[in-house]
Order: sequence, then structure tokens, then C-alpha cells
Amino acid sequence: MPDTPTPSLPCGFRAAGVAANIKKTGQPDLALIMSDRECSGAALFTTNKVKAAPVMRDMAIMQDHASTLRALVINSGCANACTGEQGLRDVDETAQLVASALGGTVTAEQVFVMSTGVIGVPLPMDRLRAAIPLAASELDTLGLLRTAHAIMTTDTVPKVASKQGRINGNTFTVSGIAKGSGMIHPNMATMLSVVMTDAAISADQLRLLLSKAADLSFHRISIDGDTSTNDTLLILANGVSGVTVETEEQQEQFGDVLNTVCQSLARQMARDGEGATKLITLEITGARDEGMASTVGRTIARSPLVKTAFYGEDANWGRVIAAAGYSGEDVNPQLMSLWFGPVLVFQNGIPAQYSEQEATQAIQPREVQVRLDLGLGDASATIWTCDLSHEYVTINGRYRT
Amino acid sequence: MPDTPTPSLPCGFRAAGVAANIKKTGQPDLALIMSDRECSGAALFTTNKVKAAPVMRDMAIMQDHASTLRALVINSGCANACTGEQGLRDVDETAQLVASALGGTVTAEQVFVMSTGVIGVPLPMDRLRAAIPLAASELDTLGLLRTAHAIMTTDTVPKVASKQGRINGNTFTVSGIAKGSGMIHPNMATMLSVVMTDAAISADQLRLLLSKAADLSFHRISIDGDTSTNDTLLILANGVSGVTVETEEQQEQFGDVLNTVCQSLARQMARDGEGATKLITLEITGARDEGMASTVGRTIARSPLVKTAFYGEDANWGRVIAAAGYSGEDVNPQLMSLWFGPVLVFQNGIPAQYSEQEATQAIQPREVQVRLDLGLGDASATIWTCDLSHEYVTINGRYRT
Repeated sequence: MPDTPTPSLPCGFRAAGVAANIKKTGQPDLALIMSDRECSGAALFTTNKVKAAPVMRDMAIMQDHASTLRALVINSGCANACTGEQGLRDVDETAQLVASALGGTVTAEQVFVMSTGVIGVPLPMDRLRAAIPLAASELDTLGLLRTAHAIMTTDTVPKVASKQGRINGNTFTVSGIAKGSGMIHPNMATMLSVVMTDAAISADQLRLLLSKAADLSFHRISIDGDTSTNDTLLILANGVSGVTVETEEQQEQFGDVLNTVCQSLARQMARDGEGATKLITLEITGARDEGMASTVGRTIARSPLVKTAFYGEDANWGRVIAAAGYSGEDVNPQLMSLWFGPVLVFQNGIPAQYSEQEATQAIQPREVQVRLDLGLGDASATIWTCDLSHEYVTINGRYRT
Repeated sequence: MPDTPTPSLPCGFRAAGVAANIKKTGQPDLALIMSDRECSGAALFTTNKVKAAPVMRDMAIMQDHASTLRALVINSGCANACTGEQGLRDVDETAQLVASALGGTVTAEQVFVMSTGVIGVPLPMDRLRAAIPLAASELDTLGLLRTAHAIMTTDTVPKVASKQGRINGNTFTVSGIAKGSGMIHPNMATMLSVVMTDAAISADQLRLLLSKAADLSFHRISIDGDTSTNDTLLILANGVSGVTVETEEQQEQFGDVLNTVCQSLARQMARDGEGATKLITLEITGARDEGMASTVGRTIARSPLVKTAFYGEDANWGRVIAAAGYSGEDVNPQLMSLWFGPVLVFQNGIPAQYSEQEATQAIQPREVQVRLDLGLGDASATIWTCDLSHEYVTINGRYRT
């Protein structure tokens, strides 16, 4: 599947993205999604001890209302984090505003709320009061891409993925949007993302499948090693397609489609990391187990020295080996082999025979493949990251201004 | 003590720094230090599983010859890491060259060898063969600053510290040099540094005191979260001053001087982090224990989002609070207070009353003080770091070229 498929909502979902003027730029900053039917849902939240107000509320909502969700509202431009009691009151009012705007068929407890943006600033409620009814009036079965636009912060492109599958001869759709860019490191959900499906599947099963999908996608990317106060990954299933996911085989079929959509969104996030000029795919093979492979991969993905070398197109493979060495895993450089693209640069503890020109060419494309074989076993993991550029520093030195 | 004291060697040490043309620039890149008498010594080495050849050899030397060391040679421009058997042979030859150049009174086993620079390139032995006798001929009691120059890589200034103390009415000196810049994170010694003293003190006692001093200095700084293959901290004690350190009280007196020298070198490293424009002192107070305080401080010190905000002089305190939140420690934002310089910006989970202008002014100086009180207990720790600038990216995108 390409990373930019034709965006389409699963059956029974409608969506809108509008400008609420929370952002100073006048860009869209409010997304509203609703399902015609009650959805079962599951969510993964940030592991940060500092949780934004919407995260605190949504955690409670998912405890009691995970099988009766109807709508989701997301604002960008303001994280509603470190905002105290006022922040919690503002989330509640936001959910209430959505319920009212949807004409009384939806209750506030059926509304999930996400926020992303600057920390420590209260939500401008007057603007939400004006914009939520506007968004409700624009809900549309073709609105998926507009919601992806409205949740962007420093993202440069909207992130959308959609894929269909078949179970028992019937078609179902899984579609998702995500926002990424900074503060992204694999430590729980790591960003905002919503995945929707028109398959019918219980909240308990969704929780298991979402957790597996996240382990293979959002937990496999790293931008800068920061974990935000607002990270949330939500899945909603409304059953409108008539496809039911129950048996182990059906779960596997559904899980394959879900994993593909989540991996596509994760790759899109890594490629569009703040200031990124390259998507770097790190394949760690020959590990004793998958945990070792992914720990080594994440450590490399997090190293500023590795990331700046790729930005500068300097085939400085020693930094990759050194990062593997301080991953905390029991690795041995004598057993390692490292490839930049097709070029073997390091083998059994010493530099391989290769030309500097070949190695440099291998890391010049916008998509770079790196493979590190640890020589210890049969397990592997793939991690996606991006380079660290001047533009990253520019963006993050002046985020609020 | 100022961070740039008058550099002087302790009694009985001589030093030299010369250009061996290992670096392409023609800058000094070979430091030689010798003691007129045998020294007791202690060393801390990198925890990286990928250890450079000199580290592997020196670890063995310190097991068997920690009480009879005589000399130390350090080259910059080449790390001699990931260089296999050849690398180990080259370290042995280097030690032998030093022993020969010192006229046969010193054996190769009495010579400690350190290297720093690019990974994966063999030592240019022909240049070392020419330069080591030259360095030996230039050994001088005034040579300390020249050695600090010769071990620089991307450092912009040499790092030297020296302090005298008195025990039982007699004066002793502790002097040190260090190189830092990139690949620096508190996870063992984190860089190259040598500390020398003319006090007499056993290798066992040195080990304990060096470990304590490192915990309060080199382990309290973070530049970019990378840990190199070559990190080494060495202390040498030759006893020439006549001062003997034995009792608990004497150890404490000596330890105070040692800690001061190590902290000065550590602060100099943080201030001169690659591309750094600011030295940031993070004081974490109100922690349950010192471990909690230092973990929270190190996590903040490592955050690229925090570091770029300081570079951009954007008083984006939410990033500091968020980093504390993902430190892994059980912190609670409702109990936290945060100051930028004298300005209280966050208290009890919500923004404090302050003017943006005040907060911005507080982070504009070249030395910025940040205090985070966790509100949980009485323990504290101070961590030093620097900002993350465009220049960091430039330096590390083109390190080898």
C-alpha cells in the first residue's frame, strides 16, 4: 500500500475540519468526527506523568463508555496541558458543546476529546463555542482529509491511510489520520492518531489488536526522544459494514489491515518529522529476541549524532555501531555487520572493504535503508526515524512565537 | 573557583602537546604526560559495549599496574575504535613507543593510552612513530595547557582546572584536563579527562574518591545523550608533594579538592558542548532522593525540545515540565514549581503569574539557571547542560569531512 492512499472514511462515519482561530495562522485547527451508530473503542495514552486535561478525562471515559462512543473532537494549536482545574472544566465543556451541536442524540460521555499544541495555555473556549457548531454543520462522508489537515501542528503534510479487507466475503474499511512531527519517541502512543473501522468488534478485542498494531508501528518510530503530555491513539469500530470480527482467524484478518494502516501512518510521521529531509528505515536483524532488536534500533534512531550524520550525508557508520553499543543490550561488535543501502560498511568488528563514494551514495536518497545484523540470533525489528536538520532547530527554537 | 584557573601541573609531573598530523588541520593532536615517580592510579571507562582498542588495553593495565603508572599518551583525530586486532596492536606499539622515548626508565605496562576522534579508522602509526619522540623531548613542567589543546576534537576551548589544598599543613595540588563536546551523556565517564595530583594516595582509595567525584561532576552533564566508545577518566597520584591521604578526614579534604576540579572540568565541557551558546544549570530540588533528582535533571538535560527552546530563547517551560513527566520517576505536576532564573513560571500544576518579557529575559544570558522543585521531599541534584543550536547540526553533519 502506498503511504498516501486515496483517503476515504469507513461507512457510517462523517467528518469535518474547520478553522476555529485557535492557531494564529487561520489554518484549520478543529476536527470533528462522528459515527452514525455507537462505536466500540479502545485507546492508548501517553505514559508521561504530566498528562493533559483531555487525556485525564478520556482515560475515565474509556473506562465507562468504551462501547458507546459516538464522536471525537480534536483541536490543534493548544495542548490544554498544565492548565489545572480550568483545563478539566474546558474539556468537559468541549464535549458538551459537541453533544449539543450534534442535536441531542449524542451525550457528552459519548464524545472523546483530544488536544495538541502549546503547553500551559488555556483553551480559548469562546472560539470553540463558535467553531463546534460550524464543524457539526459541515460533517461529511468525504471529510477525512480535512480532519487530517485540522490536527496538524508543525506537520508539513496531512497523514492519512486507508485500506480495505474482506472477511467472509464482505468488505470492511480501516482508515486513520495522525499528527506527528516533534515530541515523538516510542514510549506508548507517541502522538495523536485516530483509526476508524466499519467492522463490528468488541472493545476488549479492539484493545488487544490496537496494542499489537501500535507495537509494530507507532512504537517503532522515533523523532527526537521526547514523549508528549497529550499522546493518544484511538480506534473506533461502528459495525456499519456488517462485517463482524470475533474468531481468532477474523481477528488476524482484521489485525493485518489495522497493522498496515498504522504502519503507514507511522512511516508518514517519521518521514515528516520536524525538519526531516530523509526517512530512515533501520532493520535490526540477528538479535536474540525482538525486544533486543527493537531496543537497539530505537537507541540508534534516537542518537543525535547518527541523525545529524544522515542529514549531512556523511557515511559515518561508527556512530551507528557506537549507538548499538550503548543500547544497554548485550551486543558484541565482533559479531556485527552493517549495511548502508546495499553497501556492507562494517563486518566482524572492523571496517569492510567499500568505497566512500558508494557508501555516501547509499545514504543520499530521501529514503535510506540501514541494516544492522547483530549476529546473535534470529529475531529482527524494523524502526523508522528521520534525520536531524538545521530546520528542526529552527522550528523548535521558535515554536510558540 | 573560576572555571579557567591558572593552569599548573602538580609537582613531579611534566607534559607536552605537539602536532603529529593525525588531524588534517595541523593543530596539536598528541599529548604526553609523565610523572617523575611511579603513580597510583584509578580510571573509569565507558559503559559502551563497543569499546575502543585503547579502552580494552587500559582496562587490563589498570587491573595489574594501577600502582606503578608512569606516563600517559593521548591522541586526538582518531578514536582507534572498531579497528579489530590491528587496533589492539597499534595501542601496544604506541605504549612501547612512549616507553622507548622516555629513555628506558619506563616500561610499556606503565603507559596509559587514550584516543579520541573518528571511529573506524586505524591509527596512522607512522605519524605516531615520528611524533612521540618529539613530544618526549618537549616535556615540561609548564606543559599542562598544551596537553589540553592537543586532546581537543570539536572543542572550541581547552579545558583545564587546578586547585590546591592543605593537609596537615602541607600543600598538595590537583590539576586536570578534559575534552568534551559531543557524545556526552552521564553514563560513566562520558569523555576523556585526566586528573593528576602530587598527593600520595593508594589506588584503592583513588578509585573510591574518583567514583564519587565523577558522580558529582561528569555524570551530571549531558550534551546530546550519546555515550562514546572511548570515554575515560583517569586519575594519577605521584606523592611528590609529601602529602599523604590515608585517614577518613584526609580523604574528605582531598575529595573536596578533587570534586571541585572535576566539577569545574564538567561545567567547562557543558558550556563548550558542540555548537552550544548557553550553559544551562538545572537545579532539581524537592525530590524524594538524590537518584530521583538526578534522573529528572538528566531527562530534562537530554530533551532536544528543551534544548532548542533555550537556544531560541523561547521561555517554553511546558517542555521542561513534560520532560520531567516522562523521566520515569513518579512525579506529580500538581506539586511542581519551576523557575527560569528568578522568575516563577509554573506552580502547583498551573502557570504562575509572570510576564513573558521577564521569563524571556531570564533565559537570555549565556549562563541560565533553571530550578524545578518536585515538592516531594528534601533531596536535590544539579545537572549541567547546553542548548541545541544550528551549529550542533552543522558540526555533526560534517564531522569527518
